[in-house]
Amino acid sequence: MQHEHGGPWTEHLVATPASRSDQDAYRSLSAITARTIAVITTVSRGWDHAVPVTDFLSVTYDPPTMLVSLYGLSRIAEAVEEAGCWGLSILETSQRAVVERLSMEGGPLDGLLGQTPHYRRAPGEPVVIRGAVAWFQLRTVAQHEAATHQLFVGEVTAMGTAAPLDARPLVRTRGAYLR
Amino acid sequence: MQHEHGGPWTEHLVATPASRSDQDAYRSLSAITARTIAVITTVSRGWDHAVPVTDFLSVTYDPPTMLVSLYGLSRIAEAVEEAGCWGLSILETSQRAVVERLSMEGGPLDGLLGQTPHYRRAPGEPVVIRGAVAWFQLRTVAQHEAATHQLFVGEVTAMGTAAPLDARPLVRTRGAYLR
Repeated sequence: MQHEHGGPWTEHLVATPASRSDQDAYRSLSAITARTIAVITTVSRGWDHAVPVTDFLSVTYDPPTMLVSLYGLSRIAEAVEEAGCWGLSILETSQRAVVERLSMEGGPLDGLLGQTPHYRRAPGEPVVIRGAVAWFQLRTVAQHEAATHQLFVGEVTAMGTAAPLDARPLVRTRGAYLR
Repeated sequence: MQHEHGGPWTEHLVATPASRSDQDAYRSLSAITARTIAVITTVSRGWDHAVPVTDFLSVTYDPPTMLVSLYGLSRIAEAVEEAGCWGLSILETSQRAVVERLSMEGGPLDGLLGQTPHYRRAPGEPVVIRGAVAWFQLRTVAQHEAATHQLFVGEVTAMGTAAPLDARPLVRTRGAYLR
């Protein structure tokens, strides 16, 4: 479709409340954004949790603060809430298999990280995924509900790299990995 | 540096309060994330505001909801807060010049969009940047302070595309545009 002023144009109005078709249109449009893939890790009740995410951002460097949005009814959201501290490992382009292994929400926690090389800096701390182009350890300083999701705001307590300095992050757009 | 378990490893502990060197280390590490570039637009007191951002994410599709993090003392944060509604246009790979033109925080609002093709769907509404691979119009439903920044959570009221369907988003990583 052409806009009246020229150039390509599509437009979708969202109903109140949003319909299934509105949700589908939004999923398709929001998937256009290129998103870096990270793994959120935490330890809750003695179990390691590790889930791939794309919905995180840097809030500020003063003090170093990040935010992650997690589905409120997910096991990882509950675990991060209980633990109060969490890790964020930004994956490297070669780590697609890590995403596949850790993407089974509801899968067994026992042996979850058995096939995924990782470091634990101190007993009880959330792990860092080995090969991550950057890693952060955070302490939750605020939590906000947003519709179906929980927003966790965390201050960085430690950070670093676990890959060569020229390694590149793993990125998805429109449902496919960026090459 | 090699980690004791093998593989590359660097580690930086953040002091309380975070020092200048902590902030610098964080800026460098967080820049590794590949980030899509969008323009936040709003109309406040009759003036158009339009600022490039990278710190936004999709919160949920139920209902379609996004979040943007804006520096609390910026003119755009004040304008979005006053207006209560805002636009988010995801730029296309060829739109680096748009980023350069709109990146002057504190520059004159008069004529801000003069060189940047845009659409306005209705009088008083925030503009959509022409050529955007995806655009969203949002109504603020929550605002949270996070250190130096304000987090605006918005429900999508309208959305679409303003570029050919195979267009790709403009992405930065480590301070450079992704090709």
